[in-house]
Formats: sequence, C-alpha cells, structure tokens
Amino acid sequence: MRIGVLGTGMAGRAIGSRLVELGHEIRLGARSAGNPGSLDWLRQAGGSASAGTFADAASFGERIFNCTAGMHSLDALGAAGAENLAGKLLVDVSNPLDYSGGALPSFAVSNTDSLGEQIQRAFPDARVVKSLNTMNNAVMVKPALVPGEHVVFVCGNDATAKQEAADLLGQFGWPDERILDLGDISAARGTEMYLALWLRLWGAIDATHFNIAIARA
Amino acid sequence: MRIGVLGTGMAGRAIGSRLVELGHEIRLGARSAGNPGSLDWLRQAGGSASAGTFADAASFGERIFNCTAGMHSLDALGAAGAENLAGKLLVDVSNPLDYSGGALPSFAVSNTDSLGEQIQRAFPDARVVKSLNTMNNAVMVKPALVPGEHVVFVCGNDATAKQEAADLLGQFGWPDERILDLGDISAARGTEMYLALWLRLWGAIDATHFNIAIARA
Repeated sequence: MRIGVLGTGMAGRAIGSRLVELGHEIRLGARSAGNPGSLDWLRQAGGSASAGTFADAASFGERIFNCTAGMHSLDALGAAGAENLAGKLLVDVSNPLDYSGGALPSFAVSNTDSLGEQIQRAFPDARVVKSLNTMNNAVMVKPALVPGEHVVFVCGNDATAKQEAADLLGQFGWPDERILDLGDISAARGTEMYLALWLRLWGAIDATHFNIAIARA
Repeated sequence: MRIGVLGTGMAGRAIGSRLVELGHEIRLGARSAGNPGSLDWLRQAGGSASAGTFADAASFGERIFNCTAGMHSLDALGAAGAENLAGKLLVDVSNPLDYSGGALPSFAVSNTDSLGEQIQRAFPDARVVKSLNTMNNAVMVKPALVPGEHVVFVCGNDATAKQEAADLLGQFGWPDERILDLGDISAARGTEMYLALWLRLWGAIDATHFNIAIARA
C-alpha cells in the first residue's frame, strides 16, 4: 500500500521506517522537499521509501499519517492540500503541546475542543482517526517493546476508517483486544489531555518505554 | 485516628465508611449539620461515626479528605475554615468537572492550572496531597475489587504529607509499589485532566470497576 507520512520528527520517522519494514511504499512529507530530516531518513529507510513536500506525500498516499508537531499540524495539512486528503484515512498522531512557556508544555487546545476535532472540522472530507498519540514513538510501532496488556486508543467519526486504522495498528503488532475504540473524534480531548499525565509519568518512571493498561473487574 | 471527610457524595461516603471499618473515628462534613446524606450515612456507618458541618469535620479531624464536588470545593474548604486545615494533611479527591454544559462535562480549571493547585494556594498552611481522583469510589477504598497491578497517584509539595497519604492508601489496600508519586502539586493537572479519558473509557468498557496499570519495559 502507498502511505504518506507527514512530519519528519521522531514519530514520523519511526512510523515511516516501520511501514517500509512491513513492505509498504512510503513517502515522507515535510515543509520543503529537501528537508534534512527527510534526507537523513531516506538514507536509512531503503528501497521503497521516498520523500517530498507535504503535498507530495499526501497525494502519493492512499492513507495518511499526520505526525507533524501539533502546533503546526493545521498549517502542514493545509499545505498537504484538502484535495489530497479527501476520502482518505488520516491517522492523527499529533499532540497540541505548546513548549513556548518553558519546560512544562501547555495545550494549545484542550478541555472543550481538541486538535483531532479541529483537523476533522478543517478537513471535513478526510476520515480522521486519532490514535497512537498516547505513547513514545518506539512503542507505537513495536508494542512488544513493553511487556503486558497495554493499549492503544482509536477514535473518529467514521467506523470504516477506524477499522482501517486498526488494521495498520495490527500490522505494527497491536492485537485487536488491545485496540480500544473510544467513540467519535471528540474523545481526542481525552487522549490529548492525557499527555499531561503521561509527561509526569515519564518523569516518575524515568524511562520512555511504558504505556497504560486497563485493569478491569 | 480522627479523620474529617468533607462531602457526602459517593466518594465521601465510601471513604468515610471504609475508614470507620478500619477503626478510625470519622466525622463527615456537609454544608449543614442536618444534611440528609450525612444522616443516611450515619445510620449505616456505625459506632465511631459522626457528622456535622464542614467546620465541625475539619476541626475534628487530624487529617482531612476533600471529597466535595470540585465546582464547590474552594467554597466548602472556606466554610471548613483555614484555621481548621492548617498544618494538616488534606487529601484532595475532587475533580473540577462542570456538568452545566450538558452530558459531557468540561473542566472548570485545566491546562495551566488545576483544582489541586488552587486549593493549595488558597490554603497555604494545609498540606495538600492530590490522590484517588482517577477512579471510581468503590475502587479507591478497595483496590482488590479490580485484579491486576493498577495504580493510584499522589502528588503534592510536602514529602511527609505524601507519606501520610500513602499510609492511609496502604490501609485501604494499596501496596507501596502501586502508589506512584508524580511530584509536586502541579501534577494534579495531569491526574485531573485524565478524567476526560476516564469518562470515555467508562463508556467504552461499560463498567465503573476499572483502573489503569503502567506497563513498562
């Protein structure tokens, strides 16, 4: 499958590399085609990998991952082009973390709205599924790095899109029973605001390879 | 030990009853001494239990639990009296959930502040520890209701107060290794905003007896 991955940070590169490993054709998208992060990634990613602008990656992909920094996601998706996102699964991995205030980030959007919802509203023809934003990028694509029955969340307004996202998560190594459907895209409020707890857990655990599991009666 | 429990809702009554069962002397506090919830609780709680106003309960207790509804916690603690809270452990179980907008609550405070921090600022001589606010009230006081290595969080500015809180959590049944110290009281932002995820998990799991565990490498 041809997949466009927007964003050349840690998450975009990890997801891009894993999808190449799984046999997909990946195009990594950045603000400019000659982005140093893209070129560095291309050297490691191997044969079927390519890189270009956000629009190049979005038009190439049958499915799209948004791995851009949350503060810039709406701009990046605008540059990708609504026409290149229309009708496609758009897995939104971003978090609206604003680091401008110092070490502890705040949320650029939270409480009664979320970045996932903003993206779905701005690109109504894209089929947005929020997922994978609740953990370290290495764990996203190789959940077996962390033992135990830890979980990944999906939410979105399109049930078929959630199934397509779950299929990709399954390829990453997530068993069906550990993919939790939280409902419509407004559940992105919960998975994005969870980052405030995640950041403090990161500090308390002093390691990035962790995730939450749901214990139930 | 004499413990004051502020609030006659589900959490206050569950915590009050469990503390009576553990052999402590409990006074439940409400806006008025003749609160129907208090009287109903008194009939069930047995010998060492008593009830009164917020001030009665706070002056009685060597340690205090704030189990009032988050929207009213600052008022309730004001009625309890700063002088009755000074120097004491104040375990803050509240969440600033505002249900006035409809079925899905929003947060009255979030992102760059939290109710835990507001309480600590308003009552600087109280030793505030945020805890237990991330789960159903039955699970708070009997963690064995849910199998597995699920966790409870503590945060606060006073290390001794956190140890006192952990001792009470231990009496409820929380083993030391499942009591996670997230740092100072600003970590309350994370545990309070987690409620947005908790509410969606509640919907997805369709049961209240659940909690999160931390899987780690």
